This record gives sequence, structure tokens and C-alpha cells, in this order.
Amino acid sequence: MNNDLIEKVLEEVRKNIDLKNIDMKKVDKIIQSSSENLKESKEVQENNDTEKGNKREKKEADVMSAPSPITEFVGTAIGDTVGLVIANVDSLLHEKMGLDKKYRSIGIISDRTGAGPQIMAADEAVKATNTEVVSIELPRDTKGGAGHGALIILAAEDVSDARRAVEVALKDTERTMGDVYGCDAGHVELHYTARASLALNKAFGAPIGKAFGIIVGAPAGVGVVMADTALKTANVDLVSYASPAGGTSYSNEVIITITGDSGAVRQSVIAAREVGLSILKSMGQNPVSTTGKPYI
Amino acid sequence: MNNDLIEKVLEEVRKNIDLKNIDMKKVDKIIQSSSENLKESKEVQENNDTEKGNKREKKEADVMSAPSPITEFVGTAIGDTVGLVIANVDSLLHEKMGLDKKYRSIGIISDRTGAGPQIMAADEAVKATNTEVVSIELPRDTKGGAGHGALIILAAEDVSDARRAVEVALKDTERTMGDVYGCDAGHVELHYTARASLALNKAFGAPIGKAFGIIVGAPAGVGVVMADTALKTANVDLVSYASPAGGTSYSNEVIITITGDSGAVRQSVIAAREVGLSILKSMGQNPVSTTGKPYI
Amino acid sequence: MNNDLIEKVLEEVRKNIDLKNIDMKKVDKIIQSSSENLKESKEVQENNDTEKGNKREKKEADVMSAPSPITEFVGTAIGDTVGLVIANVDSLLHEKMGLDKKYRSIGIISDRTGAGPQIMAADEAVKATNTEVVSIELPRDTKGGAGHGALIILAAEDVSDARRAVEVALKDTERTMGDVYGCDAGHVELHYTARASLALNKAFGAPIGKAFGIIVGAPAGVGVVMADTALKTANVDLVSYASPAGGTSYSNEVIITITGDSGAVRQSVIAAREVGLSILKSMGQNPVSTTGKPYI
Repeated sequence: MNNDLIEKVLEEVRKNIDLKNIDMKKVDKIIQSSSENLKESKEVQENNDTEKGNKREKKEADVMSAPSPITEFVGTAIGDTVGLVIANVDSLLHEKMGLDKKYRSIGIISDRTGAGPQIMAADEAVKATNTEVVSIELPRDTKGGAGHGALIILAAEDVSDARRAVEVALKDTERTMGDVYGCDAGHVELHYTARASLALNKAFGAPIGKAFGIIVGAPAGVGVVMADTALKTANVDLVSYASPAGGTSYSNEVIITITGDSGAVRQSVIAAREVGLSILKSMGQNPVSTTGKPYI
Repeated sequence: MNNDLIEKVLEEVRKNIDLKNIDMKKVDKIIQSSSENLKESKEVQENNDTEKGNKREKKEADVMSAPSPITEFVGTAIGDTVGLVIANVDSLLHEKMGLDKKYRSIGIISDRTGAGPQIMAADEAVKATNTEVVSIELPRDTKGGAGHGALIILAAEDVSDARRAVEVALKDTERTMGDVYGCDAGHVELHYTARASLALNKAFGAPIGKAFGIIVGAPAGVGVVMADTALKTANVDLVSYASPAGGTSYSNEVIITITGDSGAVRQSVIAAREVGLSILKSMGQNPVSTTGKPYI
Repeated sequence: MNNDLIEKVLEEVRKNIDLKNIDMKKVDKIIQSSSENLKESKEVQENNDTEKGNKREKKEADVMSAPSPITEFVGTAIGDTVGLVIANVDSLLHEKMGLDKKYRSIGIISDRTGAGPQIMAADEAVKATNTEVVSIELPRDTKGGAGHGALIILAAEDVSDARRAVEVALKDTERTMGDVYGCDAGHVELHYTARASLALNKAFGAPIGKAFGIIVGAPAGVGVVMADTALKTANVDLVSYASPAGGTSYSNEVIITITGDSGAVRQSVIAAREVGLSILKSMGQNPVSTTGKPYI
């Protein structure tokens, strides 16, 4: 990706200066044509830019409205997230996935960058639809970053339910990405819900119906201090603690999840966010919200 | 890597415009010298570019014909694949690797990007030579991509057999890379052989002598739909199913392998390829064959 | 990160050539202002550049002397290494980490790129201070590279001891990074100490007080040949052997550790370095010391 971009830039530089007998008319012409080329290059770049929420939203809308030649495709969201459905799962695959016999359809949320945001979004999706969480798996990904991607499978008796759940999850991922703060050295990620449901229960053992928070710091040491701060800030219970060698897929993160009174959970999550961002800034980094719209 | 490239571009831009008192002669001179610099920069870039098959083939030939100062070096192939041999494995290492006493030589195929292509190529190598597969391991790699690299160890009684096997595998990797389709968001990868041998048996449990297909999609959800399509397309048997949390090294892939009648396996693999490429295209991506030469 | 840099370059190119009616005065003005912009861009780039030891040292000094708003922050080092302390670990976290009751403070060394260098440095830190090694975990990281990051936790009765240990480890990481040789295709890494202590014992089972060497090659096949060479070079004992599927966190490395007479260990490490660098060079790569200052 980056190589393509760099190649494009190099190409432009080359086009504009690889001339031994320069004359002003030629310069004019070159400039004109390369402005146009650069405009294109800029457009390519905009499409590739996964950090700018506004543009991404537009792009998502485009993709979702573009007719896909295959019925399985539902849409996309930030983080290279793709939503898919299978109306009638093949019987061999059905068995391998350990699907309950009553379900013939599945919804799939799969991405390269982000586990927390997509799981939070899937949690909203199962609340809003007639679906069940089959499995949540966390590949070691983020395209060279320190964290995880996700593969979330939801089951439904009817494909329209599966499709609806995937649509809800894709849309909600834009919201939950708001408290993912990335930078070159790592990231800080926070999630909060007043009422956890089945996806959070499946992924982290969240008590259903209770307030629930997720606190993530990378490199992992940042997460340790965030965890310590969160637990000291308010009276919350620690639900899970994951580190590179235990509970993550060898990602460079410490991830804790907490539950308790909704005010306390929220307060702990916010305190962890502050200390996490402070550490990254002290490292000379500039962590920014993925979408520019924090939701907690 | 990219940083070096970017720095080079920046340097060029700077050299060409960091002048307060510009005059046309100076411009001429600058342009001339920076064209030369850019030519160099371009050459560096070409060496670094691992995506362009044609150039890579040339480079491989160069490297293989260049005299290496060490006897262990055999050659390279696409995907940062290196082929190596050890004529007389040290006794401590011999024991750690669990080598059979009758073998004193090993051949090594090791790479950053690709597991399927190199395993397929190793399968051809063991068919063609007097070697045995010792181990196949799949690091979580691909240089920030969603998949695996590979470490394949072959054993031989004589180093000339080990060397020959590595040479065959390096050469064949160019062919098997033809059905690896990469893009920024992920990849789709297909393999097919009419007759599986010992490497495919070791890596995936392939029934020896039977038609065998490998179907890979990343991010993992793409692989789920490809698997479903493959199994519905023709009457094939599912040999293995791997997902991020089971069977892969936490890669962001779903990988299935199938066997059966050779026509059915081929048909299933092709159908999976079509649906996989369609999903990546629906995501706004442009997946392309790594070498430009699909082999299935 | 890179995208930002590329965008900056593109922006500069654009600013300088997006003019239909060029005239020399305008060119002059543009050049002047963009030189200034480029200067800024260069500064950004310098901050981002993690490969150049000299600049990094300067940066580290800056960061360490800059007042951090949080008491937990100690400093940074090469490899996106951050040093942190917690004076009074929260009781829930204390329990999860399995800390001995007598310790209330911890020191944290956490990084994206490098396990060996930071563990070697932590080994010096525990020798020099009144601290104990709690845990050493190796995430699969290196920002798209083939190796590991690290999360090292040290415990102390007093926070000043923890802080001192972290400071020693950060400083020593600059030294131990000297024998990490990176390139696009992989890396070669060597470590040697005349007297192993508790961190090396915890991480690799090193016999305490004895000479100890670590030999790493990536892609993994490079490490196999380095291991073979090391074991043949001198009379040393193999302490551990790790490969992608066993002992690493699915990194694309073979890592061996050796002990024995100090001269023999050193000789083996140096021989492994030579063969590893030779293979990478035969692959058409240019492996260079991360800091430019080999220490072995």
C-alpha cells in the first residue's frame, strides 16, 4: 500500500524534474498535467486513509450502496471490517463450526484492525436482533500494529436476521472506534457499555445486563499502568486480565475488563484513558482518536 | 524500509527546491544531477519491490548466479524465500530437530511471505528427489500482512539430494505464487495438485497420491465464505479447517483443505477463488496475482 | 505514521508544482516557504526515525529530561521501549500478576521492537539494583518485522529501586541493540554476557553466573544455519532451541541460547553473526547494526 503511494510520489517527482533541457513552456505543461495526476494520487490516498472518520463514512456509504455481484456481501466499516452473510451454511462447514442445528444462516463480522470495537458493535447487534453469538476469535493482526483483528460469527434461523445484525454491527463500529487512539508506538483503547450482552459475555465473560468496561494499552506496559489506574480510581471488579503470553493472541497489549456500578465503571475507564494517553505523549507520540469522535 | 524510501524522496524534493536564488542554469544542473540520483533511488526501489513478479524473477536469477561466500546458501525466491542446506548437521541440533539417524544433511526453505506456495513447492521437491519432510512450521508473518511465512526442513542422506530439493522448491515457488492474490485489506490464495505427496501430508494431513486443494481467505471472514462456496460447488471432502484461534498461528485467515476427484477439487478451488476475489473487490480493493500468472 | 510522512511529501510536491501560470518570482517564493515546510517535515521525520541510533540517543535524552505529567513515566529507549514504574500496585493487579507479598512496587520495561536487547539490559539492571524479575513475556511484534517485542516486569520493595532498575535497563538497551542487524528480509541478532543473571535465567533458563550467548536469525531458516555454525565453532552447551512453532510466539525466528567457557561462547556467537550476515547479504540484503555500534 505505502509502497504504491511512495512509488506514485516518486513518479511525480521524476516526471517533473527528469528534464535536461528545461524551458518554461514545458514546465507549464508538465505542471498542468502533474497537477491532474496528483489530484488522482490524492484521491487514491484518500481512499486508503483509514484514519479520517469523515471520509471513511462517505466511503462506507458508497461501498454499501454499490451493487455487489455476490449475495454474501453486506458492507464494510473502518478497520478493513467486512460484513458477510451465508444464507444456508454448507453442512460440513456447519458441523466444523459447531453450529446449533436450528440455525441455518450466519452473519460474519471480520476485520484486520480492531477487536474491541467490533465486539462492542456485535454486542449491540445481538441486543437488537434475533441472533446468537457462535464464536469470537482474535487473530494477531492490525497490519503491523500491536493488536488484534477479529472474526465474529453470529447465527440466525433466518438470513434476514443475520443480515440485519451484520448491518447494525458495521454501523456501530464507526461509533465504538471513537475511543481507539493510535500512534506509531502503540495504541490506547477504551470501551464502555451500561449493559453488557452476549457478545461481551462470549468474548470476555462479561456479566450479562451489567455495566462493563474494556481497557487496552499497547505496548503492553502502557496497559499495565492503565489497569492499575482503573482499579484504583473507583470500586470496580476485575473480570479478566490478558497479557502477551496469556489471554491475547501474543499481541503487544495488556487488556483488562471491569464491571460494577455503571458510574464507577465509566469513571475507571476515563481515568485509564487519561493515563494511557499521557504515557504515549510522554513517549513523544501523538495519539489521536481513530474517528475524531470519542464516545465515552 | 519504507522510511528509507520516503527519506530518499524527501531528500530529492529538498535538493530540488531548497534554493532561494533560483536561476535556470542552476535548475538545469540540479535536474541533471537529481535525475541521476533518482535513477539510483529507483534501482533501490526495484530491489525492494517484492510484488512485481517479472523483476523478481530477474533478481532471483541474479542472486542465484552470484557467487555466495557461504556453502550453505542455495538461492532465493519470491516472498523473501531463502533456500539453504547443511551438509553435516551438528549433533546437538540433529537431536533437537528430531532427525532420523540415517540423515546427516538437511535442506531448508524459509520465507517471510507465504506458507501454501512454499509447501506446494516442497511437495514437488520431495516427489522429484530422494528427501524426506522433517518439519513444516508456520510463523505468523507476511511483513504486516494477514498470513503466514514458512520454515520447511527436508532431510537427505546426501547433501546433493538436499540441495537439489531446495533448488526445485525455490523454482516451483514462482509457479505456486501465481494464485496468491494480495491487496491492502487482505488476500485470497488457492492451491491445487492432482497428486498430493509428503509435504502436503505433513502440513495438512493430505491423503497421499490424491487430488488436493488449499483455499485461503483473509481477513478470515472472506475465507469462511470461500470455504462455504467450495464445499457447495462440487462433491469434495473437507480434510482440514483452520481459523485464527485454531489451526493457524493466530493469522487472520480461514484455511480449508479439500480432497476428492481431481475434477471436483479443481472446480471447488476455482469457485472459491471467484467468490473470494469478488468479496475483496466489493470491499473496494484490487486483488492481483503476485506473479501475474495464475496456475490453476 | 508512514502515511503522514507520505502525505507531507505529497503536500510539498503539490505546493510546488500546482501552478498553471508559473513565474520566477512565484517560484522563488514557493521555494522559500516550502524549504521552511520541509525543514519542519524533516524534523517530524527525525522524530519518527527509529533506525538511526545517534538521533535516537538525542531524542531519548530530550524525552527523559522533559517533565512528564505522570509519575509512572521513567523514560524511553530505542525500539519504542518505554520504562514505567508503579509505586503501589493495586491489590487486584498485584494478585493477578502473582507478585510476592513483600513487593509493593514494580518496574516495567515494554517495547515494540526487540526482546533480546531488553532482556539483556534487564539482566544488567537486576545485577545493579535491589529488584527481582517477576515475568518476561514476548509479544509477536516488531511492527511488521519478523520478531518479538517484550514486556518485562521487575519487582521491588521500594519504588526508588524499581525506578533505578528501569533507568539502568533503558540506558543499557542502547548498548545491547548494537548487535541487532536489520534489513527488509529479516534480521540477525546476537547477545553475549560473561555472567548471566536472573533475567536471562527467567527468560531462557540461563545458568546464573556463567557465560551466556543468544543467537537469533530471521527468517527462521537463517537461524537454523546460525545455530549449526555456533554449535560447531566451539565447545558450548545448547541451553534452549526455539522455532516458529515451539518456544517463540510464532515469530519467524530460530533462537538458540548457549553457555560454556566465556571464550567459547563469545567465539560461537561471533561465528554465528558472520554466517547470518552472509546469508542475508546473499539474499541481496544489506543488514546493518541498529545503532552502528556492535558490542560483542
